[in-house]
Amino acid sequence: MTVREQYDADKALVEAALKAAFRGRQPHADIYDAMNYSLLAGGKRLRPVLTLACCRLCGGQVEDALPFACAVEMIHTYSLIHDDLPCMDDDDLRRGRPTNHKVYGEATAVLAGDGLLTAAFEIALTASDRLPAERVLAGTACLAKAAGAAGMVGGQALDMAGEGRALTQPDVEELQRLKTGALICAAAEMGCIAAGGSEEQRSALRNYASKLGLAFQIRDDMLDVTGDESALGKPVGSDAREEKTTFVTLKGLDGCAQMIEKLTYDAEEALEPFSDKQFLTGLARELADRTN
Amino acid sequence: MTVREQYDADKALVEAALKAAFRGRQPHADIYDAMNYSLLAGGKRLRPVLTLACCRLCGGQVEDALPFACAVEMIHTYSLIHDDLPCMDDDDLRRGRPTNHKVYGEATAVLAGDGLLTAAFEIALTASDRLPAERVLAGTACLAKAAGAAGMVGGQALDMAGEGRALTQPDVEELQRLKTGALICAAAEMGCIAAGGSEEQRSALRNYASKLGLAFQIRDDMLDVTGDESALGKPVGSDAREEKTTFVTLKGLDGCAQMIEKLTYDAEEALEPFSDKQFLTGLARELADRTN
Repeated sequence: MTVREQYDADKALVEAALKAAFRGRQPHADIYDAMNYSLLAGGKRLRPVLTLACCRLCGGQVEDALPFACAVEMIHTYSLIHDDLPCMDDDDLRRGRPTNHKVYGEATAVLAGDGLLTAAFEIALTASDRLPAERVLAGTACLAKAAGAAGMVGGQALDMAGEGRALTQPDVEELQRLKTGALICAAAEMGCIAAGGSEEQRSALRNYASKLGLAFQIRDDMLDVTGDESALGKPVGSDAREEKTTFVTLKGLDGCAQMIEKLTYDAEEALEPFSDKQFLTGLARELADRTN
Repeated sequence: MTVREQYDADKALVEAALKAAFRGRQPHADIYDAMNYSLLAGGKRLRPVLTLACCRLCGGQVEDALPFACAVEMIHTYSLIHDDLPCMDDDDLRRGRPTNHKVYGEATAVLAGDGLLTAAFEIALTASDRLPAERVLAGTACLAKAAGAAGMVGGQALDMAGEGRALTQPDVEELQRLKTGALICAAAEMGCIAAGGSEEQRSALRNYASKLGLAFQIRDDMLDVTGDESALGKPVGSDAREEKTTFVTLKGLDGCAQMIEKLTYDAEEALEPFSDKQFLTGLARELADRTN
């Protein structure tokens, strides 16, 4: 199986599980409509695919990690809904469609985000149907730490505080480590935890994911300058309009390409303890070269 | 010990635990300041006190339930921050102080709410320091279900959808069952779960809490008409201004008083399986007569 075939197969598992997550729930005031609108809007599904791949790599069955995979995608989706709000980044377009608050209004968008954030923990805990309680606790705790004020939420707060101010490269790296890196690391670690992997494996995968996540973000910054709006499904040039300090403003496009090359090499290096690692090395390579 | 003395002792335990919750955390962009501003603003602490009392009633040690108690109060606090936002109820005053977004701005208020919601699950899971993993999973799952779109978030969505429309009494009861009742029930059930209580005990406490919660809400509606702004710490008359259908508009003040009397009686009745229940019966009585 090629990297792309494996990715698509795992992604299909995730899509089916996400579609089923709220099936049959009572549609109180359309809140589930608003949640599903963003949750089922496509997207790469990078984080949940990473969870499944890391579970498999550590010897687990991917089905065991599926609740964790769905949970991490719900967290990611809620963060996009809240980030797009008028009081935050005020974006109208996401994944090629109007943003949640453009369709459902601001109040419902806030609540849809809250609902998805809460549902993430609810679904993560259902991993106990197939896994020992201790693993479920460890995986869910890992997610909570990465998603909260010491991780993603803190990164978003730093991002808001940084708009219109000049940041240094360490500032931007710290911001991105929290805002996008923490959740990507948790996605990988949760897969390892579901499989009952060792501390050494978990640490290696966290290291891999942190390099991958930073390279991913640098590529995002490049695509905001050089990318194609229809391929990306969102407007380009928003960083410049909002006067954000990005890796492109700090290092230029060539400098960014060099950073990504180095990080991708480091990510592959981090996988040293594993043998059957073609998928994760291939994934890092594909993400480095992506155009959307 | 009187009901009031017991309440104040349990409340003091909760206050101390909440104060310690984010101690020593790195203050990324003041996000913890904004979270603590609302979390440590006082309030009745009804939900966490209920958690501790139900744990004690079922034979557990209150310290075992403290993480659950803090978690339920964090959920309650985040919901107030988000409810007060301009796109929701647009309130300026809460617990006698400017609302979170008035002090920190809308973006930070959204994030402070997100941070508290996430922290609630993080702290709930720390109950595993003292409790078997299965109880921690059950308690945390109970919280997630009650707080999400099938509970509190769904109730808030119904509330938004209902503004300016005439609702029937069943509509309002369903709305309040979700918006305030679900979390109050979870608070009680989590105490029982922490103590390793039986299904019969859990069911009795859920029944008690659902009656207590509805009576609490009806009293809230009455106080919005008859209450004293300085005692309540928030403006009165907001329901009328927002043209909300409340128990007062449906049943009048006398009808509300009768409903509360009946619900308080039913709450006491629900405690039939327990012997040492003076605190919970006294609490129901005190809440029925409260003036703030």
